[in-house]
Amino acid sequence: MSGTANPKAPVPTGGTIGILGGGQLGRMLALAAARLGLKTHIFCDEEDAPASQVSFATTRAAYDDEEALRVFASQCDAITFEFENVPAKAIAFLEKLKATAPHSNALAVTQDRLAEKNLARSLGLATPDFFEVNTEADAKAAFAKLGKPGILKTRRMGYDGKGQAKVASADECATAFTSFNGAACILESLIAFDFEASVIAARSRDGSFAAYDPPENRHENHILKYSTVPARLDPRQVKDAVTIAKRIAEALNYVGVLAVELFVAKDGTLLVNEIAPRVHNSGHWTIEACAISQFEQHIRAVAGWPLGDTARHSDAVMENLIGEEAADYLKLAQSPGGLHLYGKSEIRPGRKMGHITRLSPLTKA
Amino acid sequence: MSGTANPKAPVPTGGTIGILGGGQLGRMLALAAARLGLKTHIFCDEEDAPASQVSFATTRAAYDDEEALRVFASQCDAITFEFENVPAKAIAFLEKLKATAPHSNALAVTQDRLAEKNLARSLGLATPDFFEVNTEADAKAAFAKLGKPGILKTRRMGYDGKGQAKVASADECATAFTSFNGAACILESLIAFDFEASVIAARSRDGSFAAYDPPENRHENHILKYSTVPARLDPRQVKDAVTIAKRIAEALNYVGVLAVELFVAKDGTLLVNEIAPRVHNSGHWTIEACAISQFEQHIRAVAGWPLGDTARHSDAVMENLIGEEAADYLKLAQSPGGLHLYGKSEIRPGRKMGHITRLSPLTKA
Repeated sequence: MSGTANPKAPVPTGGTIGILGGGQLGRMLALAAARLGLKTHIFCDEEDAPASQVSFATTRAAYDDEEALRVFASQCDAITFEFENVPAKAIAFLEKLKATAPHSNALAVTQDRLAEKNLARSLGLATPDFFEVNTEADAKAAFAKLGKPGILKTRRMGYDGKGQAKVASADECATAFTSFNGAACILESLIAFDFEASVIAARSRDGSFAAYDPPENRHENHILKYSTVPARLDPRQVKDAVTIAKRIAEALNYVGVLAVELFVAKDGTLLVNEIAPRVHNSGHWTIEACAISQFEQHIRAVAGWPLGDTARHSDAVMENLIGEEAADYLKLAQSPGGLHLYGKSEIRPGRKMGHITRLSPLTKA
Repeated sequence: MSGTANPKAPVPTGGTIGILGGGQLGRMLALAAARLGLKTHIFCDEEDAPASQVSFATTRAAYDDEEALRVFASQCDAITFEFENVPAKAIAFLEKLKATAPHSNALAVTQDRLAEKNLARSLGLATPDFFEVNTEADAKAAFAKLGKPGILKTRRMGYDGKGQAKVASADECATAFTSFNGAACILESLIAFDFEASVIAARSRDGSFAAYDPPENRHENHILKYSTVPARLDPRQVKDAVTIAKRIAEALNYVGVLAVELFVAKDGTLLVNEIAPRVHNSGHWTIEACAISQFEQHIRAVAGWPLGDTARHSDAVMENLIGEEAADYLKLAQSPGGLHLYGKSEIRPGRKMGHITRLSPLTKA
């Protein structure tokens, strides 16, 4: 709890990990930290946050309240965040005060679809085609360059399909841009992909790297519905997927867990879709199928502890429980599998209320 | 949170489970409750209790403070306890106010080695020979009846070898009795057992029953050191062990997880040694090796939820970390296996500081 301790020393068991954000990812991070004897302190702006219910302390304040951030930092031994739309400025402020991971530069890149794709391109990684769109004129010009239907996305703050529109003409592209209130966008080519996959990987303070087996992900209504391991990837693709994540993590000098979402094209090419600077919904199965979950792995990295073994002892299918799907949880509790409910007081359409992970005996990846 | 709701209805997700006791078992119960979206409220008399660090609320008060118990009950939807030396009177008081499990009668039996062994005997289950000892004269007479070296145990409040003495003569038996300050005792025969095993089982409000595979347990200095599944039991012995637990649970009209410790005699006979009315150290491996851990199973039973699947997907060895063994936790974190540290601020000799569970591929039980 002391600000005078060596900031490079691992956080001792009994120490406190600060987490910005109070949602289900923060909740599962707090539960994982508890396994290691670490306390958690949640900083969030919402009341009755799911993560607060299982944490040692909560600071409820705005993310730009520097005085609250300063006091929070003084009460933590290391700091992280659980959602990528946390203001990068808050992280930049905190990292001057206390060991904070991932760092603000990595966060800033992954908050911006353009910067993220430019990074991937600079590393020679395949991505969908993309074009910067800052004006209506850009929107029309970008569509002309793309020359086929595409998808216009706001560069910032999008999630679960929000801030995205499919466009089939230059005019549609311009109209979509206007509908996003002139927010900076990128136009991406539509990929006729076979399926989506992701890599959940971790990099520690000392640069060591560990990845879980990449799951295959199925979305419904733009929200992740199922993650399955093993994915329909051959060993070469698995290796390539992990290498992609490793190169991105190293380029960002990243510390913590990150997720790289991939399109698997019909010809087998892996294209980088998105980078999430945090634990990821497609990694929830690691709680049941691995000795060390993605949540504990992230806490280990943030705390300066050694990374844990990412080996999988079982195959797994993770199913998200969205909105009303969680209503009949007593029935779900009767089915085999690990049921997780997030302690959210209100069911809302499209809201992630919980998930269930079903294991089966290990097959080869 | 309402006292007017149907006490027989399952506790809804978002509801609160009250737990008497704040140690590592309460901590792991709280973490398991959190998976199901349940809050926990710890009632204990110690400061900085391990369970409080991960719970929604804590009441710090004496276990005989009826006003504190009454307020606590009003803030919970169901109540349980995490250590068997909780005063049965406190549980008897609480069960009049709120759904409480296990009930006070079951607790009272398992708090008393004589009542516990009499129960086993009444069910026709094998136990070591035992004799009641209330006076020095009893002590000598009991030894004469036993006719060979035995072990004198206080009937109440013993754990980890405390309140026990091996005795090889009538005089030694009388001296041991006096050394326990005249506490009521039983003299038991020493069993030349092959090894120790235990059954971790659960019974729900509606009487359904589920048991985990029985682990084999190895003690060092009277403290559990290793639990291994599968145990060296043949399928018939496994079935018999589970039947023993089931008959005891039914005789006690038990609700929750209970553990039955067994001696496996050299001729293969299973003898009932102790009954613990709670989750048990020899069941910690269920966190990693089963979809539903003993902790979640207990919470489910207490909350009136359906019991979960007890199937094991892996073999497992659980190792307790006692005293200084937990000091080098960063090294332990590098070894494969699930590391658990209990958030205890001070290492003391003989104190359970954490445990580690290592999995290996499933073999037959």
